[in-house]
Amino acid sequence: MKIRILVLGRTNNPHLRLLTNDYLKRLTGMVGVEMQELDDIKNTQNMPVEVRKRKEGDKILQALRPKDYVILLDEKGKSFGSEQWAAHLARKMNHLGRDMVFVIGGAYGFSGQVYERADERLSLSPMTFSHQLVRLVFAEQLYRAFSIIHGKPYHNA
Amino acid sequence: MKIRILVLGRTNNPHLRLLTNDYLKRLTGMVGVEMQELDDIKNTQNMPVEVRKRKEGDKILQALRPKDYVILLDEKGKSFGSEQWAAHLARKMNHLGRDMVFVIGGAYGFSGQVYERADERLSLSPMTFSHQLVRLVFAEQLYRAFSIIHGKPYHNA
Repeated sequence: MKIRILVLGRTNNPHLRLLTNDYLKRLTGMVGVEMQELDDIKNTQNMPVEVRKRKEGDKILQALRPKDYVILLDEKGKSFGSEQWAAHLARKMNHLGRDMVFVIGGAYGFSGQVYERADERLSLSPMTFSHQLVRLVFAEQLYRAFSIIHGKPYHNA
Repeated sequence: MKIRILVLGRTNNPHLRLLTNDYLKRLTGMVGVEMQELDDIKNTQNMPVEVRKRKEGDKILQALRPKDYVILLDEKGKSFGSEQWAAHLARKMNHLGRDMVFVIGGAYGFSGQVYERADERLSLSPMTFSHQLVRLVFAEQLYRAFSIIHGKPYHNA
């Protein structure tokens, strides 16, 4: 069982990239995890939002394998406390027997087709975070969850 | 009306510091905002958690002025969507006529005395974020709120 984090668009801020990668690196040894950045859609300036969402959705769907268990990071998803989410994640990992893919979309949300493909939706907060910041927040939360699962003390460093 | 963000402990990660300061800088012109870092409590290794919380609480209380309107960032606080929080913030600013102080505590939460002094509690997420990461997330959220209040487009940069 591996975890993939599928994100739309490159992280162009080097500080955010470094902080996010640091959490992913710390996860090594506890779980196989990789972040896959999909190229942003080009020439979006005069593109209707619905067209953009569909194009973004197509990219996301292409990057998914049929057996992937797909969890969208979505404000309207289910919310958990960190301990509760760690327990949920541990249960899933024990029973699924397939890779989990967490998808972080663009600024406009997911297309209908992506919602249909999804197995779960997870909300990190009812507030909207910039989609680049979400990567860092999610990486920290994943690291926190695996620290809880493995009984490792995680001092809020 | 000014906004102060009172945090316990120095941000020792230069990348987090830079990203957080960037949002605070972008707020200039929309609102007077400053972050005040209180020194960590020393020699905490064998200190009971309750003693530590009380000492941290004393530091926080000392840094508050009698007229300050105090909002604790607390997992058990009230949660809002970003738009909803911006509206709440705008209402408060129009009516309070005094400075707002947002307090980000240490890893163990606030002492009873700090809770008693508080006027509000705000939750950014039911999940626990590292208390250093909370600073960045909150700074982004404050910037987002003021962008909403001032009708500025905020592209999820």
